[in-house]
Amino acid sequence: VSERVAVALIGAGMMGAYHAESLARRLPAARLAAVADPSEEAGRGLVARLDAGSVRYERDYQAVLADPEIRAVVIASPGASHPEVTAAAAQAGKHVFCEKPLGYSLEEADRALTAVATSGVLLQMGFQRRFDSGFLRTHALVADGTLGSVQLLRSITRDPELQRPESPLPWAIFRETLIHDFDVLRWLADSEAVEVFAMADTLIAPEYRERGLLDTAVVCVRFANGALATADASFRAVYGYDVRAEVFGSAGMATVGEGRLDSAWHYGPAGVSRPHAHWFLDLFGAAYTAELAHFVDCVATGRPAVVTGQDGRASLAMALAAVESVQTGRPARVANTPSP
Amino acid sequence: VSERVAVALIGAGMMGAYHAESLARRLPAARLAAVADPSEEAGRGLVARLDAGSVRYERDYQAVLADPEIRAVVIASPGASHPEVTAAAAQAGKHVFCEKPLGYSLEEADRALTAVATSGVLLQMGFQRRFDSGFLRTHALVADGTLGSVQLLRSITRDPELQRPESPLPWAIFRETLIHDFDVLRWLADSEAVEVFAMADTLIAPEYRERGLLDTAVVCVRFANGALATADASFRAVYGYDVRAEVFGSAGMATVGEGRLDSAWHYGPAGVSRPHAHWFLDLFGAAYTAELAHFVDCVATGRPAVVTGQDGRASLAMALAAVESVQTGRPARVANTPSP
Amino acid sequence: VSERVAVALIGAGMMGAYHAESLARRLPAARLAAVADPSEEAGRGLVARLDAGSVRYERDYQAVLADPEIRAVVIASPGASHPEVTAAAAQAGKHVFCEKPLGYSLEEADRALTAVATSGVLLQMGFQRRFDSGFLRTHALVADGTLGSVQLLRSITRDPELQRPESPLPWAIFRETLIHDFDVLRWLADSEAVEVFAMADTLIAPEYRERGLLDTAVVCVRFANGALATADASFRAVYGYDVRAEVFGSAGMATVGEGRLDSAWHYGPAGVSRPHAHWFLDLFGAAYTAELAHFVDCVATGRPAVVTGQDGRASLAMALAAVESVQTGRPARVANTPSP
Amino acid sequence: VSERVAVALIGAGMMGAYHAESLARRLPAARLAAVADPSEEAGRGLVARLDAGSVRYERDYQAVLADPEIRAVVIASPGASHPEVTAAAAQAGKHVFCEKPLGYSLEEADRALTAVATSGVLLQMGFQRRFDSGFLRTHALVADGTLGSVQLLRSITRDPELQRPESPLPWAIFRETLIHDFDVLRWLADSEAVEVFAMADTLIAPEYRERGLLDTAVVCVRFANGALATADASFRAVYGYDVRAEVFGSAGMATVGEGRLDSAWHYGPAGVSRPHAHWFLDLFGAAYTAELAHFVDCVATGRPAVVTGQDGRASLAMALAAVESVQTGRPARVANTPSP
Repeated sequence: VSERVAVALIGAGMMGAYHAESLARRLPAARLAAVADPSEEAGRGLVARLDAGSVRYERDYQAVLADPEIRAVVIASPGASHPEVTAAAAQAGKHVFCEKPLGYSLEEADRALTAVATSGVLLQMGFQRRFDSGFLRTHALVADGTLGSVQLLRSITRDPELQRPESPLPWAIFRETLIHDFDVLRWLADSEAVEVFAMADTLIAPEYRERGLLDTAVVCVRFANGALATADASFRAVYGYDVRAEVFGSAGMATVGEGRLDSAWHYGPAGVSRPHAHWFLDLFGAAYTAELAHFVDCVATGRPAVVTGQDGRASLAMALAAVESVQTGRPARVANTPSP
Repeated sequence: VSERVAVALIGAGMMGAYHAESLARRLPAARLAAVADPSEEAGRGLVARLDAGSVRYERDYQAVLADPEIRAVVIASPGASHPEVTAAAAQAGKHVFCEKPLGYSLEEADRALTAVATSGVLLQMGFQRRFDSGFLRTHALVADGTLGSVQLLRSITRDPELQRPESPLPWAIFRETLIHDFDVLRWLADSEAVEVFAMADTLIAPEYRERGLLDTAVVCVRFANGALATADASFRAVYGYDVRAEVFGSAGMATVGEGRLDSAWHYGPAGVSRPHAHWFLDLFGAAYTAELAHFVDCVATGRPAVVTGQDGRASLAMALAAVESVQTGRPARVANTPSP
Repeated sequence: VSERVAVALIGAGMMGAYHAESLARRLPAARLAAVADPSEEAGRGLVARLDAGSVRYERDYQAVLADPEIRAVVIASPGASHPEVTAAAAQAGKHVFCEKPLGYSLEEADRALTAVATSGVLLQMGFQRRFDSGFLRTHALVADGTLGSVQLLRSITRDPELQRPESPLPWAIFRETLIHDFDVLRWLADSEAVEVFAMADTLIAPEYRERGLLDTAVVCVRFANGALATADASFRAVYGYDVRAEVFGSAGMATVGEGRLDSAWHYGPAGVSRPHAHWFLDLFGAAYTAELAHFVDCVATGRPAVVTGQDGRASLAMALAAVESVQTGRPARVANTPSP
Repeated sequence: VSERVAVALIGAGMMGAYHAESLARRLPAARLAAVADPSEEAGRGLVARLDAGSVRYERDYQAVLADPEIRAVVIASPGASHPEVTAAAAQAGKHVFCEKPLGYSLEEADRALTAVATSGVLLQMGFQRRFDSGFLRTHALVADGTLGSVQLLRSITRDPELQRPESPLPWAIFRETLIHDFDVLRWLADSEAVEVFAMADTLIAPEYRERGLLDTAVVCVRFANGALATADASFRAVYGYDVRAEVFGSAGMATVGEGRLDSAWHYGPAGVSRPHAHWFLDLFGAAYTAELAHFVDCVATGRPAVVTGQDGRASLAMALAAVESVQTGRPARVANTPSP
């Protein structure tokens, strides 16, 4: 019996809780060793729900980084903390799985990447769409040449319900939401973005305009290989959680994303219908588990992860170019300074 | 300019009215010359609605059969009259397009076929599904060998609303409705039925049980080439008019029939939906026009029709075997006495 | 019997031929009176194919405009001639159905609109998607409020095969192709575009770059009511002719366009498949007939057309803004000078 | 931390291996305590693959029944052994999860049920379709009255590849395969079958006819509440593993089963396509896990299972009626002697 990889979770929110369950129950090769969260209620509550007596709770993530038994961390704390926690974990010699985004500025992202490079640990970014079976098959159609050279792409994300925080994160629609689409577009285009144009507005909650919570956006992207892309996002789709992509090449097209929950259809007097997914885990639960399984496998075997810190940086650069485009009203170049 | 084929309509009901419009407007190679119907209101009303001054109306269909200018008739009168009218038209030397069924008994059907054979006119049966683009493509997958040898089939018909006539036609579910499915199954199996088993009941309108109006049925069929089939029918599908078929062979399967009206989908809080067809012309309007175009072309060119009186007889034989099966509670052999 | 509206066709190309057939055969309220085309082969050939001895052929469209019996014209000549022919027809007192675009510049479009306004004739633009059953149902979901306030839209057009003319029309992808999408977006947004950003390239046929034949494009649009849209186009989709739209509002979404030919599916060892439409008439034949039926009805009754010269102008203004955006590399304002 | 339920697996074949993995890894409330299989290679191999040192292997299932620590068994041995093993396990006081069928004759099934009733243990039958999300939603539409009173049903099973055993099990198509459909039909009809008619043949492998391996079948069923059903089965569908059901009632219809693997579509020159499932675990992996989770929960809590030995008996009675029908060429009554 090989030894399970001891992993600590940092950040016991909704996403962190799912990752914790995967580490504790779904992944035989992993062991959830610790949970860190400044909120004792969240952290201890998660440990209790997992019915996992051997998992320790720490208020301060530094305490888990100091534990020599822990080989890796899953960072699911708020986005603003990602660069700092990633760097600290790397400096402590822990392998890092970091939820997107890598950070909110390239400077802080690069500091984290430098720490990772210096310490030689693994860094995998949490772009779970890359582990969804439909997205994987779509990518395979690009990678094996079936679609020919990629010419047009599309990726969209529409959340089912607008969060209305007291202090909304500015530019969240680009830095937290469309960053998924930017990663998908790069991956499917197999190229780096060079130019981004974006339009964004507060069409759902105009009262948030002053606080910078744009809720609706469209984007055009030009890639280095010539491919052109569009993306859009909304923070409130009444019909559910809608994530789709499309890739069009010289030899064909692939589409992915239907929000299906199962294969049943209802035929009634009002027509033919099926429910649409509303809960992100209904769409991506298996993908979240798969990405973590990949991470644990990489830690155990020393193999490189297929989604790296560079992917985190490149998608962040696209998001920041989108922000700049909205600010200036013009297209923006994507920063391509080589990262650490 | 070649001369248009002069055609008379016999029977100005709903189906007849559509055929009349096709002859008057949709088919450049045809000319609607006369309409016969015992109901002056129905017959004259149809002529008036067509805004076609040159179309004559006759109460008695014999009057149109006596008109030497008329080359062909479309019979859309009640099913019980089909054998008599077909025979009379044939004896008058008119080519015949006859709505299904060919009759309600093999004896009377055979008398009609004898008259047709004797006079040498064309007889095309009105099985319009054979002219529907989806059914045609399904059949082509059988005919070109794509599906291999046929092993299993299914055909269903579900009407949107039960008619509640004063004097219901006994066994209508087999002799008027499933006869379409029997023809489709024969066509897709490329074989003749040898054995039929049926169960039928009054699940929608039990008050009609005494008057013989069975409203729900399932059927099993064995074909001479070994293929096995099921069929079902209902006289009231609240979601609409539902006609589907499926053919399964050693090398693949084809399905046809979705009740689609157009390509639009609605995504709302209750899910993803589209309307289902309710009106038979929404599903088969183009097929009804195409079968009549084929008939007119056959009359004009002398080519044989692709749906013949023998098809009418064979499907009737299956319907009568289904009736016998319900009466005896056992499977019934399909009568295969060679017809005229 | 009411009198049929006498209509002349100007321009006997592929699109004109279909309209001629509709006038001659499909529309009982219309009569094809004349065909004008500088190519005698095209014009006389079309008349001959229609087997319509009473249709006269003219080389010069002015000859048909001089015919007092002709009440209306269908203009399907090359796009560059549309303003001139429209103006001439209006001055001759003929009602005008003009294929898109209204012209290639706002100046010439406005001259045509002035002539139309002065003469008081009807002008209907040939945006047939507005008459497609799926697009109509999508629009109805906007118009009846089912979708709430429109926030995001998408429209795409992908042609099955790149035409490779000797002298390609510059900016055809915007002025000839995406102009359809611009009209659809305006119609579904129920608002006027204020800003357009476009990226375009020669990804299919780089050898045409010097001659200005851009073959691939993406677009972002901002509407006066705040709605944001994307569009894309390609001149070669190997899988067929792909026209789709999507409209997303505060209360739901609708999508339209699947390239379905019929309802049949094939299940084989390679998976589940169906053909995709390749021929524009397979997708829009019924819509082309319906728009012309509407035109003929408007001429006969004096009712206004639902697609007007102003729609032609507004979509052209969007196309020209897209051209300007590509030229400057920046978003462009949509010219909104009030037209005649 | 509550104690995990100790479960032994009896029968380490393909199905048993999946259940063993669920017990060892997927179900936190269960613990795989032992594996019994007469083949040491199969049994020890499975234990080794699970990397589960604490799982003991026994050649003889009686050895695991003698272990007081084991609270429950999962029986996945060959069908012929099910009654004997079920009875022995019950007599040993073990709760029983038994793969379908309960047996091959009602006599032996009833002996097993008597043992279960006498000992008071739980018996859950392995009809996993009842735990599939699509089938569950379909059933919910019946159970909550959305579909009204059930009138027509259909269930089909088509395996991707014919097994060609040396000594084929006679009537396997009814007793091993369609027994799933019989259970689904009973469940969706919410009624017991009273009459069954079946036709069956060797259309795939005629060389097996003498050995009784019928490979293709169609069935009609009448239920006590009047509902009528069809079913079909084939042992070789080249396009994959095809399991579908349809339930039609006075107020609507539901369909389930599409063989989808994910949400991606490919658009190529040959049309629009997606793969079809070929592997039974791709369709029902989650359902197999869910049924076992239910079993473990019932054992732990003492709650009754939702799929019982009576369900196993009733579906077997339908299968035996189908066998009788094929043998006699007539419909057969379903034995409804009250079971223990």
